[in-house]
Order: sequence, then C-alpha cells, then structure tokens
Amino acid sequence: MRRLKTIGLVGVGLIGGSLAAALKRAGTNARIRGFDRDAAALERAVQLGVIDEAADSPSDAARGAELVIVAVPVRAIGPVLHDVALALGEGAVVTDVGSTKMEVVREARAEMRERFARFVPAHPIAGREASGVDASTGELFKGARVVLTPLPETAPDAVLLVRQCWEAAGGKVATLSPEAHDRVFAAVSHLPHVLSFALVSELAARPDGAELFSFAAGGFRDFTRIAGSSPEMWRDIALQNRVALLDEIDRYAAQLAVFRELIAKGDGGGLMRLMTEARTARHGWTGAQKRATTPE
Amino acid sequence: MRRLKTIGLVGVGLIGGSLAAALKRAGTNARIRGFDRDAAALERAVQLGVIDEAADSPSDAARGAELVIVAVPVRAIGPVLHDVALALGEGAVVTDVGSTKMEVVREARAEMRERFARFVPAHPIAGREASGVDASTGELFKGARVVLTPLPETAPDAVLLVRQCWEAAGGKVATLSPEAHDRVFAAVSHLPHVLSFALVSELAARPDGAELFSFAAGGFRDFTRIAGSSPEMWRDIALQNRVALLDEIDRYAAQLAVFRELIAKGDGGGLMRLMTEARTARHGWTGAQKRATTPE
Repeated sequence: MRRLKTIGLVGVGLIGGSLAAALKRAGTNARIRGFDRDAAALERAVQLGVIDEAADSPSDAARGAELVIVAVPVRAIGPVLHDVALALGEGAVVTDVGSTKMEVVREARAEMRERFARFVPAHPIAGREASGVDASTGELFKGARVVLTPLPETAPDAVLLVRQCWEAAGGKVATLSPEAHDRVFAAVSHLPHVLSFALVSELAARPDGAELFSFAAGGFRDFTRIAGSSPEMWRDIALQNRVALLDEIDRYAAQLAVFRELIAKGDGGGLMRLMTEARTARHGWTGAQKRATTPE
Repeated sequence: MRRLKTIGLVGVGLIGGSLAAALKRAGTNARIRGFDRDAAALERAVQLGVIDEAADSPSDAARGAELVIVAVPVRAIGPVLHDVALALGEGAVVTDVGSTKMEVVREARAEMRERFARFVPAHPIAGREASGVDASTGELFKGARVVLTPLPETAPDAVLLVRQCWEAAGGKVATLSPEAHDRVFAAVSHLPHVLSFALVSELAARPDGAELFSFAAGGFRDFTRIAGSSPEMWRDIALQNRVALLDEIDRYAAQLAVFRELIAKGDGGGLMRLMTEARTARHGWTGAQKRATTPE
C-alpha cells in the first residue's frame, strides 16, 4: 500500500471511526484529520485516539490529505463532496461508505465535476447495533465484504488505493457497477429492512400490540432485529434506492400472494415445495458463509 | 405437584424429549414410558435416559399412565389422540405441545369424545435450530412461556396438573382461549415464518440467486434464519391455522403497500414516522423481554 502522510475523515461515527481505527491497527502511519458536524463526537474521537486531530469543516479535513474518506449518511454525501472538492489537492483520492451507489455517483459527478475521476464509490457491508464513535472498533471490517463501484472514468490508481485501504482494514473487496450494486442490495438488504419495519409497525399500531409482543419468541426476535435500526438511515436509503427497491417490493408482494393462494387453497404440496427451496437455499447460504469466514 | 407414578410420552423429539428431561431434573420420580414411530429415535431416547422404557404404540404408552404427553407434529395429533383415548385410564390427563390450538381442539373433541374434559391443550413457546431427541435438553423451557388453552368443559384438576408440570420444567404458564392463541401466534410467529420463507424462496428462484446471497450480511442472516425451519412443520401449521394466518397476511400486505406508496411518492416524513414507531416498539419489546428474564 502506498505510504500516506495525511488522511482526511469526514464523519466519525461507527463506520468512519472503525475504518480510522482499523487503518491505525494496520500500521498506517498517516495522520488522520477528522471532522464531524457533531462537536461532541469529534472531541470524543480525538480523546479515543480514533483521529489525531479535529478539523473545522469538510474542506479543512480535505486540505492537504492524500485520501479523504467521507463517512456520513447517504443524504449528506453530496453537500460534503461539494465542500471537499473545494479544498482537494492535486492527485488526492476521495471515497465514501454509503449503502446506495447510483444516487451517490450522480451527486459526486455533479459536485466534483472535473475531479470526479478521483472519487471511488465504496460500500463496506458491516455494522452493529450500537452506533457512534464509542462503538467503533478496528475489528469491524475483519472478513467483511466491501463493494467498490468505480466508473469507466475513475482513475485506476485511485481505485487501487481505496482497495488497499479496505484490505488493510481486513475487508474482502469486490467490484460491481453502481446499477448492479443497487439491485443486489435492494434485494438482500433494503427490502428485508422494509419488510421488518412493515411487520413491526403494523403490530405496534394495534390496540393489543403489547400483548402480541409479550408472546413473541426467538424467531420473531431475529426476524425483527433490523426493525430496531436507525429510521433516518433507512428512510434515506429507501428513498435514494427507490427504483430498485420498488421493483423488489413488487416481486416480493407477488411471491407473498403465491403463498397466500397456496394456504387459501390448502395446497400442502405447493407450500412444501417453496418452503423446501427456501430452506435449502438458506442452509446452502449459511454453509457458504461459514466456508468463506473459515481461516485458510 | 401431584405425585405421578407413570407418564406416557408419545413423540420423543426435541420438545417431548426436553420435557421428559426437564421433569426428571425437577425430581419427578414418575416412570416415563415413551413411544415414537421412529424406532431408532425411540431406542436412542432410552439410551440417553430421556425415557425409562419404550412402548409399542401410543395406546401402549397411555396404558396405566396418569399423564399422557402427546409431543408429535400438529397434523399427527388427531390420530394419536384416537389411539391414546382407547387405552386411557380413569382420571388420566392428556396434553399436547402443538403450535396451533383451534384445529387441535376440534380434533381432540372428535377423537376423545366423552374423555375430552381430560384433555388440556398446551403450547410451549420454545425451540432450537437442531431437532430430534439428541438435541433435547432439560433446560429448553427455562423461562419460556407456555400457553394453555383449556375449554369451559376442561376439568380444573387436569389443567392444574399440566400447569404444574410446565412450571416444574421452568416454564411461565399463561392461559388463552384457542381462538385468541391462534390469532396471537398467527401474528407473531406464523406470519413471520411465511414472510421469511417467501423472501428466500423468491431470491433462490432467480438466475443470480447465488450471487445475491453472496452479498448478504448480518441483517439478512437474522431475518431469514426462520426460513431454515422445517418445511413439514410450517406447512402443517400454515394449513391448520389458515383462517387467522390469511387475515394476518392480508393485514401485512396492506401495510407493505403503505410503505411502497410512501417510497414511490418520496414521502420521507411518512416513512420516518412508521419506521420510528417500529423501532420504538421493537426496542420496548426487547427491554420487556430482558426484564422478564432477569432473575428476581
């Protein structure tokens, strides 16, 4: 990995803080200058040693940095990139950590203009229930997939640098187009979140909601864990990835209608076939996950 | 708890085996005579000491027993109760562990006729991913809710005996009508299973299903864990609790359509409101769960 002297970090929450911590653990000697619009979080990040120095603004964090990591909620990425582009040095690289990519790329193109080739869109597939810099850990990305979605015009050296950073943090890097990324994550992440929020919100609105919850057990707990996620974050993701997500909701509603029809008709054979396909796929996936995370 | 000399157990799987083990741990000195249509499982149950003796049939297990526990899949309960009723002694009590109750009660009434007042419908809310007698453990019901759904004609002494058994096994006993039980569990258990099976079966049927799964992470894993459950068991539950489950599917589909509309319109405020309600309810429920399982 190229030796970096200064890294700018905008957003010192769970993801930004964890990436900074992971890069430090990996022996990167770069000075990390961070900014966060939450002054208390920024101060805490310095106290914890997650960053070396507090900057006054996104531009200030970007000034003189060879790499700028934008780790803010998806709806804030555009404005931050605007500020970052104002101060970006020659040859510097910018990357993000957003959960959607087409809209981020669109905004990056508009805000960074002739510097757009230095922007490497990225999405680490990691998280935990706690959030904020106090929850950050240099271990967060160990074995996690990280998807880069460079465009044809993205500079290869910029892609290489971002890839090396994520690998140093323990991530396993894959590359997709922004369109493929948004379709894939609409299916395996954004849709399940909407489904879980829909279930819990529907039950919670009933007069006997509390009684219903009192009888819920482990299956319900696991199924609804993601309904405990940040409403702000998931509202923004749902709106940013609207087109792909609506398509997934429609496919899902159609499949649910198939199950409904089989149950209404009492078609045990049909139910058995679909449930067995699901079980086989689920077990196959779990097996593949285990194999993928087994040390070689 | 009344001192029992002999308990008959039909079905030595995870639930039946765990209840037998729990009763032994609790110091019940009753001799447990078990039957299972799977001869190897029955032999294994004797080897493991989960039961004291193997019976030749459900009738044989019931003969001379003061309590008969029917721990078989829901669709098998009717035929087993028929056999058990043939050999049931004066004053003996019968109970089951089925996940649906209205259909079980209907069949019990038909099969047990004038002995129906001795039948106490029960549903322990417990399970684990592994199944079979080898997975059984006397700890399975510690802190678990157990729902009894006695009818107006059910004998009070029979209800008391079954309640005491479950309390001895560590369960927390609640009482509902069969109708209320089936509505509650359609909402918090049967519906989530159908939703999870629907998602995984839909993704698995796509040409790029394997690629989609390869990008799935922790949220997807939790959301879809229940799609790895037994298709036979869930097919049977879905069909037995058809009426309540169809009602839940319709309510859910309507709520999903609300989310779809908010996303399509770009109504961030509406999404935020529903997602926040869900998150608040989910966190409140988790808190209540924790308080309920904290030792006093």
